[in-house]
Amino acid sequence: MAKQFTLAEIADFLGERYQGENITVTGLNTLEEAQGSELSFLANPKYIKQIATTKAGAVILHPDHAKDVKNAIISENPYFSFARCMGLFAEKEGFFEGISEFASIHPSATIGENCTVYPFVVIGSNAKIGDNCTLFSGVYIGEYCELGENCTLTPNCVLMSHTHLGDNCYLQPGVVLGGEGFGFVRTDFGVQKIPQIGTVMIADNVEIGANTTIDRAALSKTSIAKNTCIDNLVQIGHNVQVGEECFIVSQVGIAGSTKVGNKCTLAGQVGISGHLHIADNVTIGPQGGVIKDLAENSVVSGSPAMEYNTYMRHSLLQPKIPELFKRVSALEKQIAKLEQERDSQK
Amino acid sequence: MAKQFTLAEIADFLGERYQGENITVTGLNTLEEAQGSELSFLANPKYIKQIATTKAGAVILHPDHAKDVKNAIISENPYFSFARCMGLFAEKEGFFEGISEFASIHPSATIGENCTVYPFVVIGSNAKIGDNCTLFSGVYIGEYCELGENCTLTPNCVLMSHTHLGDNCYLQPGVVLGGEGFGFVRTDFGVQKIPQIGTVMIADNVEIGANTTIDRAALSKTSIAKNTCIDNLVQIGHNVQVGEECFIVSQVGIAGSTKVGNKCTLAGQVGISGHLHIADNVTIGPQGGVIKDLAENSVVSGSPAMEYNTYMRHSLLQPKIPELFKRVSALEKQIAKLEQERDSQK
Amino acid sequence: MAKQFTLAEIADFLGERYQGENITVTGLNTLEEAQGSELSFLANPKYIKQIATTKAGAVILHPDHAKDVKNAIISENPYFSFARCMGLFAEKEGFFEGISEFASIHPSATIGENCTVYPFVVIGSNAKIGDNCTLFSGVYIGEYCELGENCTLTPNCVLMSHTHLGDNCYLQPGVVLGGEGFGFVRTDFGVQKIPQIGTVMIADNVEIGANTTIDRAALSKTSIAKNTCIDNLVQIGHNVQVGEECFIVSQVGIAGSTKVGNKCTLAGQVGISGHLHIADNVTIGPQGGVIKDLAENSVVSGSPAMEYNTYMRHSLLQPKIPELFKRVSALEKQIAKLEQERDSQK
Repeated sequence: MAKQFTLAEIADFLGERYQGENITVTGLNTLEEAQGSELSFLANPKYIKQIATTKAGAVILHPDHAKDVKNAIISENPYFSFARCMGLFAEKEGFFEGISEFASIHPSATIGENCTVYPFVVIGSNAKIGDNCTLFSGVYIGEYCELGENCTLTPNCVLMSHTHLGDNCYLQPGVVLGGEGFGFVRTDFGVQKIPQIGTVMIADNVEIGANTTIDRAALSKTSIAKNTCIDNLVQIGHNVQVGEECFIVSQVGIAGSTKVGNKCTLAGQVGISGHLHIADNVTIGPQGGVIKDLAENSVVSGSPAMEYNTYMRHSLLQPKIPELFKRVSALEKQIAKLEQERDSQK
Repeated sequence: MAKQFTLAEIADFLGERYQGENITVTGLNTLEEAQGSELSFLANPKYIKQIATTKAGAVILHPDHAKDVKNAIISENPYFSFARCMGLFAEKEGFFEGISEFASIHPSATIGENCTVYPFVVIGSNAKIGDNCTLFSGVYIGEYCELGENCTLTPNCVLMSHTHLGDNCYLQPGVVLGGEGFGFVRTDFGVQKIPQIGTVMIADNVEIGANTTIDRAALSKTSIAKNTCIDNLVQIGHNVQVGEECFIVSQVGIAGSTKVGNKCTLAGQVGISGHLHIADNVTIGPQGGVIKDLAENSVVSGSPAMEYNTYMRHSLLQPKIPELFKRVSALEKQIAKLEQERDSQK
Repeated sequence: MAKQFTLAEIADFLGERYQGENITVTGLNTLEEAQGSELSFLANPKYIKQIATTKAGAVILHPDHAKDVKNAIISENPYFSFARCMGLFAEKEGFFEGISEFASIHPSATIGENCTVYPFVVIGSNAKIGDNCTLFSGVYIGEYCELGENCTLTPNCVLMSHTHLGDNCYLQPGVVLGGEGFGFVRTDFGVQKIPQIGTVMIADNVEIGANTTIDRAALSKTSIAKNTCIDNLVQIGHNVQVGEECFIVSQVGIAGSTKVGNKCTLAGQVGISGHLHIADNVTIGPQGGVIKDLAENSVVSGSPAMEYNTYMRHSLLQPKIPELFKRVSALEKQIAKLEQERDSQK
């Protein structure tokens, strides 16, 4: 099942040299967990002691440490070299090829070359699927959806009508794109629903995590720009615009019509209110709650979010607040006594 | 693909008058994004400057602004008129009609008139589906479930056994109703599971967002009353009772056996502990954490939740708490000095 | 449809005695909601007044209260006895038996004895399914997955390749195991993806809630130890290790490489940062945010999490912080006045 390579082949792939025995490498692992035929790496000096005890068959490490092990690949950047090896050993997910006869494909849909369509996929009317796409089982593609080239939709992903994906998008299982935005208002004659007639536009090279939901716009579009990475269980509301190369970690929620700039990092469980503007290169710490616009390069944390250094000082002092109340009460008594003494002296 | 109407037809539909050229309207958009044949609207005076630069073919606006544009529909309430137009332009989701021969329907299930059942739907034994229901692909309806009339279950929604839906319910993709409640206890002989033998009852006109989960009750039922709107990725625990016309925004979690009254608004990422009673017309701000009962008309925020005005003052002061510690330290020194001087005078 | 037993049969099953009429019991319910033929219970003295008004046909209660009702089962531990009755009345979910001809099963997959495979299930190459497993519709089992005996995967659960489940695991609908971990880094030449080549290993007797996601490891494995119970919409990141008998309540997020010990309880919406070590028997309160290691038997709450008693005192004082600022301002004025008076006396 698994791939294997000789140490020489891996060194050659990396464009680096190796030393010791040209063993056959059957997998990759950490120094602590690697066994006989596995390749490991030493990047962080913190783990240098593990070099003496590791059972790894070979290690990728810096020239400075070359003498410490017998079988090794020598690299100026062991972490980066190892990450490249992970790509070498990674297996493409899935086991099916071709277009299943058990998929339900509308006659008006068009499907590019070299696509894989698993059983029990549904593709709606006028949908367009680019070349080299893979649709796993349980995927639903609504009418008028358009997918670029080389997209992978893992099992049970749902694209409601008119959703667009660029090239090279990868959706983990259970992603829902284009569900209706939360458009309800209370009126004198009861709850009214505002129909959501916009779409979702996902640009090239976007990755979206399992069971994440991105709603269609009320008007116009909800959009995610290229190279942005979204983790699991994230909620993105209607008409949100997310910029390029953002990292949106799991369980983040972004409310309607908010704009997030390029290269922003939103840590886990962050919430951002609606109609805000988050500029480029902003970092928001875990569980942060953002209720105001944030300027370029802001680093914030807390709920409501504040500047990071202030947050850190606040965090350290927070457990001391009960004591602060006592200190203030003590001061009040001391002052009262001093004032009393003063008054009695008059 | 898209619908189109003349300006006169739209004015007629709205019961309003129009001015200018009777253009053909091909879509709706904001003033900022609208193009030649699109209709837009001006409701908020904040956007009045955009009237001069919009490329919209026509605008719905108040009589006071009628002179500012050529092609227009004149309405006393432009936002409401525009929302009605959104309904006019909205297209019904989906592309399939009839009962698919690739659905798996138990012989004992009954299906009403004019229903649509997509391929790869499963309907269990003794299930009852009302008239005019639409079940998209990947939907699972467990045994003894009952659906009222005119319900729409979009792709991959799951109703476990005995779940009831009223009329006109709309479930976004991936909703799970009737999963087992979290009924586990630690005992001297290990973790024990309390079987969850209750059900989920959803009343009329309830909308539920994508990937939201509502658990079956331990006993009796978990219930959502009529006209309540639930957003994406919400968790509702076993035996929770939610009242009428509530708005439950995305990523809210409500723990077991809590009762929520009518017309409550729970903002994004709110958490409510179990066995609480939230009265009618309560509003809870985003990321709020509720650990006590809340009286009618309460407006709260924060974690743990406090009265809204207190929360707002607290929020503004929170970043100044580190400074407050310094101020108290300074006071302590000043007082110590005053006391020392007093003592030396004695 | 529903099961029924006589009061004598139930008493016999429990190994307890009954009094009154040997009625036929058609279901179980709370004292408040039970009707004529239903059995209820009195465990918490708080509900003793309901004994007088309940319409339950019979009640399980402590010998001390035996005189208060006519039809009863007498038990030293009424709650435990009632929980056992819930197991007696619980019906096995589902209505289908055998291997559906509408499932798509790879020829190289092996399926144990007495398994149930619903329509529209997909089982990948080299997958191994143990005896007595049930796979509901829409389930996807990737290549090289292995399931122990007696596992139940309810509708639309997804196991990506190489995921392992032990015996007696129960997955609520929409669970995703083995999606790719969030492995992205920003580099000088753009966002790079670190391939995730590890797996997910779930031990025996683990229950996982609806739409919960557990990511595959970057290297090695993400693991959940035996007897652990996970609620709905939980996120567990790559390389996380969760111990035995943990309770992980809904919407919790655990970031990558964190280790959680045995018998820990993580309340709803808790977030734990990556690379931390949470020792055995730790309890984390709702919405808690953990950013540091936690020692054995810790009980913490708040964000960032602090010791529970400190948190409780802090919570009570939090709404009084605005007033504290006023008190400190008043003190500063008083002190200034005292100092001024002192200076004028010199």
